[in-house]
Amino acid sequence: MIRPLVAADRAAVHDIVARAGNFTDDEIEVAMELVDEWLAEGEDSGYVALVLADDETSKSVKGYVCFGPAPMTEGTFDLYWIAVDPTTRGRGLGRQLVAAAEEEIRSRGGRLLLIETASQESYTATIRFYERSGYDVVSRIRDYYRPGDDKLTFAKNLGS
Amino acid sequence: MIRPLVAADRAAVHDIVARAGNFTDDEIEVAMELVDEWLAEGEDSGYVALVLADDETSKSVKGYVCFGPAPMTEGTFDLYWIAVDPTTRGRGLGRQLVAAAEEEIRSRGGRLLLIETASQESYTATIRFYERSGYDVVSRIRDYYRPGDDKLTFAKNLGS
Repeated sequence: MIRPLVAADRAAVHDIVARAGNFTDDEIEVAMELVDEWLAEGEDSGYVALVLADDETSKSVKGYVCFGPAPMTEGTFDLYWIAVDPTTRGRGLGRQLVAAAEEEIRSRGGRLLLIETASQESYTATIRFYERSGYDVVSRIRDYYRPGDDKLTFAKNLGS
Repeated sequence: MIRPLVAADRAAVHDIVARAGNFTDDEIEVAMELVDEWLAEGEDSGYVALVLADDETSKSVKGYVCFGPAPMTEGTFDLYWIAVDPTTRGRGLGRQLVAAAEEEIRSRGGRLLLIETASQESYTATIRFYERSGYDVVSRIRDYYRPGDDKLTFAKNLGS
């Protein structure tokens, strides 16, 4: 099941993000800041966070996704974070989370979904995942994260 | 003179942003949110705001610029907002503000400065201004702001 992330899920989500293996401490901190804003303010925070779990319990959480409307746009959304428990990879859970995010975004009038990611080698699997999920690279900003590590933006048209 | 934006300048800056003519109410609100975060927390906010003024008084403020480090990057900065009193255009004040921002960013170890703007017609002068200031378009995300209004990203290498 996919359901809104609640306060009891925070530790499980932190654990998944930390064990994902491709996030720095700095990135983990930013990811949890967004989770905390969602928990404190709900959609007024500008973020929505969903978890994928076997049931309502936090110990069954296998992954999460965080997205929100891009400020000053009409109908563009950003997918900020997605992570799946590394022990459950290859079972299509990431794909289910992306599909759930797309459905929620469409229901909020979203027409364009963007995902930013790094070009560095540790993201190779991530990049393939987005391509398989129907996203195209629409922008590359060279040396964005650090010299040699570009920012790629993937996009999918959610048009009706 | 160019100096840090202080609380007494807030009304003058709001007035300049509102009279600039190319910002929507939504954009004006976002611009002032960043100013308020800078006033409340200083650099801990993640933003720096400078004003161009004839002297220390707020009534002499002619323009402002707001920038900050891009989260999760090493040495990349975003120039978030820049506005000059429309009655003082053509005197190179915008160029002075950009140069001051670049200098401050270099002094903080910045190596890459990015500026995002809209492709719509009301931004034509803005786009020419960035090009004349040595910025290149490095990314265009189609239909980002709304259908037909793309997001352009300008970049300048501040390398030593």
